[in-house]
Amino acid sequence: MDGGADGLGADGLGALRDALGERLVIDPELIAPYARDSSRAVADGAPRALVLAETTADVSAALAWAHAARVPVSVRGAGTGLTGGAMAYAGGIIVSLERMSRILEIDSANRIAVVQPGVITGELDDACREQGLFFPPDPASARLCTVGGNIATNAGGLRCVAHGVTSDSVAGLEVVLADGRVMRTGARTRKNAVGYDLTSLFVGSEGTLGVVTEATVRLKPVREGLPRTFRASFDRLEDAGRAVTAIVGGPAQVEVLELMDALSVEIIESFRPSGLVVPAGAMLVGQTVGADAETAAGIVTAICAAHGATDTEISESDALLEARRLSNPALNARGLKISCDVGVPVARLAEMFHGVAEISARHGLRVSTVAHAGDGNLHSTVESPDDAPGIRAADAVIDDITRLALSLDGTISGEHGIGSVKRHELPWQLDDTALAVQQAIKDALDPRGILTPGRAI
Amino acid sequence: MDGGADGLGADGLGALRDALGERLVIDPELIAPYARDSSRAVADGAPRALVLAETTADVSAALAWAHAARVPVSVRGAGTGLTGGAMAYAGGIIVSLERMSRILEIDSANRIAVVQPGVITGELDDACREQGLFFPPDPASARLCTVGGNIATNAGGLRCVAHGVTSDSVAGLEVVLADGRVMRTGARTRKNAVGYDLTSLFVGSEGTLGVVTEATVRLKPVREGLPRTFRASFDRLEDAGRAVTAIVGGPAQVEVLELMDALSVEIIESFRPSGLVVPAGAMLVGQTVGADAETAAGIVTAICAAHGATDTEISESDALLEARRLSNPALNARGLKISCDVGVPVARLAEMFHGVAEISARHGLRVSTVAHAGDGNLHSTVESPDDAPGIRAADAVIDDITRLALSLDGTISGEHGIGSVKRHELPWQLDDTALAVQQAIKDALDPRGILTPGRAI
Ligand SMILES: Cc1cc2nc3c(=O)[nH]c(=O)nc-3n(C[C@H](O)[C@H](O)[C@H](O)COP(=O)(O)OP(=O)(O)OC[C@H]3O[C@@H](n4cnc5c(N)ncnc54)[C@H](O)[C@@H]3O)c2cc1C
Ligand SMILES: Cc1cc2nc3c(=O)[nH]c(=O)nc-3n(C[C@H](O)[C@H](O)[C@H](O)COP(=O)(O)OP(=O)(O)OC[C@H]3O[C@@H](n4cnc5c(N)ncnc54)[C@H](O)[C@@H]3O)c2cc1C
Repeated sequence: MDGGADGLGADGLGALRDALGERLVIDPELIAPYARDSSRAVADGAPRALVLAETTADVSAALAWAHAARVPVSVRGAGTGLTGGAMAYAGGIIVSLERMSRILEIDSANRIAVVQPGVITGELDDACREQGLFFPPDPASARLCTVGGNIATNAGGLRCVAHGVTSDSVAGLEVVLADGRVMRTGARTRKNAVGYDLTSLFVGSEGTLGVVTEATVRLKPVREGLPRTFRASFDRLEDAGRAVTAIVGGPAQVEVLELMDALSVEIIESFRPSGLVVPAGAMLVGQTVGADAETAAGIVTAICAAHGATDTEISESDALLEARRLSNPALNARGLKISCDVGVPVARLAEMFHGVAEISARHGLRVSTVAHAGDGNLHSTVESPDDAPGIRAADAVIDDITRLALSLDGTISGEHGIGSVKRHELPWQLDDTALAVQQAIKDALDPRGILTPGRAI
Repeated sequence: MDGGADGLGADGLGALRDALGERLVIDPELIAPYARDSSRAVADGAPRALVLAETTADVSAALAWAHAARVPVSVRGAGTGLTGGAMAYAGGIIVSLERMSRILEIDSANRIAVVQPGVITGELDDACREQGLFFPPDPASARLCTVGGNIATNAGGLRCVAHGVTSDSVAGLEVVLADGRVMRTGARTRKNAVGYDLTSLFVGSEGTLGVVTEATVRLKPVREGLPRTFRASFDRLEDAGRAVTAIVGGPAQVEVLELMDALSVEIIESFRPSGLVVPAGAMLVGQTVGADAETAAGIVTAICAAHGATDTEISESDALLEARRLSNPALNARGLKISCDVGVPVARLAEMFHGVAEISARHGLRVSTVAHAGDGNLHSTVESPDDAPGIRAADAVIDDITRLALSLDGTISGEHGIGSVKRHELPWQLDDTALAVQQAIKDALDPRGILTPGRAI
């Protein structure tokens, strides 16, 4: 086994093969689909093996081996990440959680589910809905991404304005540490003041501190009544921004509150036409739920009208939200990948939109923006040729937008995380001490630096 | 200054006096009130000095000095803690945040406040209410305790069932690390996926990782309409437990849902009579808010009646909640201090109550229980003589109750934290790896172990 004839010994993979059998894959063609994510990051070389983990013990064996051999490890859910977090390393191994996709328990009385990390987010949500409950995190990628990936990136989504981010829905974890040790965090209770909040430390750690092999997540009850979807079109983007601030500060609770500027609507509509009328400025779409969904939607559209909406609509179909969810694929279909994920306090949205328009004009490049507007989280994408100078020009626009967000008390990432793509922006937001503390924690938990090295922090 | 004549040089405090002037107190009589908290922990000796910090720089100077001199530091808000976290160390220094009590900003548009750590929780809440907002954390001690103490213990309170624990309301912190370095965490945005969640790491860290010198906290809008307070009395405690499970799983949103067993009601009523009729089993009291508060309270009392309540009441006064808040002082007035803070998933409350009764019978000691029932968090107190054998007997009861909670998927602390008092229970809940990871983080951030050593983890 260790002789190298099977291509394992030479790499020192023999011991790992003994532990994993056919769950260790070394055929480069089979490995390739697992070697990258959905970002524009570029691989720095071919990984040496892929682990298709089926149990916590598999993950533990893989990490213990990598720790001993000082081999870099990338961790992969579904590879829908947008910041390069799951990209393979040259000579590294990939730990895929794809096969650990079971829902272990839905405890409806306590509104908790226990799942393996590879379960697809939307499938967990479906299973919960059969019991009158739902899983709050709903990134636009919910039909593709995994709960483990959501946890590792602290993913957001459309319902954050009502239900918070992924960390708000995680009660506890099972984690495999860099050296293969297994640990449990958290509890099944709503409150748990026992030592450091290790659960939250691992949420959003992007595969750099440990591999999540099981999660206990919180569910919420589906509210009765037919949801209402609303739309409001504006001639001016900044008016839409002001409307969002007023809606969020107003009496009606919204479940979803999204914004698409004119160019985004145009891009989505030309990707898959659904009859959306491109507004002059921007379109807000959203949803209200519960017994008073109709009343709440009425309040929202009235606020929009008072802030200059030219046209509003309330409907019982959620086609408009589906259109919003197509934004990412529609951009990709145009080859547009240079985008950002900044956030600002919601009362500063109008200022932010004003500034983005100025930056776009100054650089002479068109920028389209969609936003999880209710929580001030913007994704702006730059239209620029897909060649080196074009990418450089687009990157310069994104840098300016990011610095603008920071100048408005904002953040460089609302929900996609840092990965490799946004790492150069970290010192713009975090002070030297915070950067040093992150590194100190990383060193304490992964002293050999084998887990997703060089990313996230 | 360094000569020792003023009592400073001999202790090596001269340099600190230079930095702090009269904010450094060495008179033992003036120090004494700051040397302990509200727990039954016993001091191990007299501290050498008290720092009445007025600025972040004061805190930084104090910690840098203690780090250099390897002197243990206790950190103190208002000293209402119940687990010994703020007890002074023999020969140590106390850093008090009492003078850093300003509300720096209330940003009503973004529903955020920026405060110094020493602000009294209830005073922050009052100030927010003037702007139609409120600060969600509301421990029963809200009129006494500080926001910094709430953050350091991840405090709970009466409104947790609706609004979560303190960590759910903290957006960012300024922290002074053990060596005096100052760091900022978090952001003012709702979503922030930037590196490790250091904010959550410091929340609940009980003064062991750093001193919180500023906090950015999230506020919520006060809902319109007169709140309704409800009460339901039960002949059997377990029926009340089942009613709580049904209420929490039902359609009416409660703002507060508390339980007092018969003995607790008796203790409170004899401490300050308010006309409460002692039930045979237990009493639930709680509150509903918003435009449909009356309807919601009606649903709650109907559920109670269906679960065996003998008597229910809905009122517009919150006198009943005030009675509940007296539980701790009433117990203290009887000299009863041996209590716990366990939690169970809310659907297991009836089992928990059943088990507590069994334990009480087996030990032949009366136990009174109050509970933040809506989130499964129980405080049981043992009636036992205040002498060594009495305390030992009471401790044995608490140990059994705590293990019972764990056997029901519960937790050893819902909201008071670990401090020194509950430290022996930690290995009952946390596995060896989790304990080691906590210690590794502590060592990474406070390598000399000067900050609140020997507690919390
Ligand atoms: C069309 C589209 C729409 C999107 N919309 C949204 C959106 O609305 N909101 C949003 O937040 N994101 C969105 N994303 C980004 C992406 O879907 C999320 O980041 C998602 O959480 C990634 O999940 P994944 O399973 O694909 O993870 P991957 O891409 O495989 O990995 C992401 C990161 O998590 C780590 N990781 C994965 N699994 C584990 C594990 N079990 N343990 C430890 N670390 C792990 C990886 O190492 C990597 O660093 C979108 C992406 C696409 C392509
Ligand atoms: C009558 C009564 C009722 C109570 N009811 C509740 C309740 O309903 N819910 C609940 O959760 N608790 C309750 N408590 C416990 C207590 O009030 C809380 O733990 C509170 O959060 C402590 O705040 P404090 O300012 O008094 O902190 P302290 O007691 O001074 O300190 C508590 C801990 O926090 C640390 N600390 C304090 N300030 C800082 C800071 N700025 N930076 C870093 N560390 C710091 C200390 O070192 C210590 O470890 C109650 C206590 C009493 C006496």
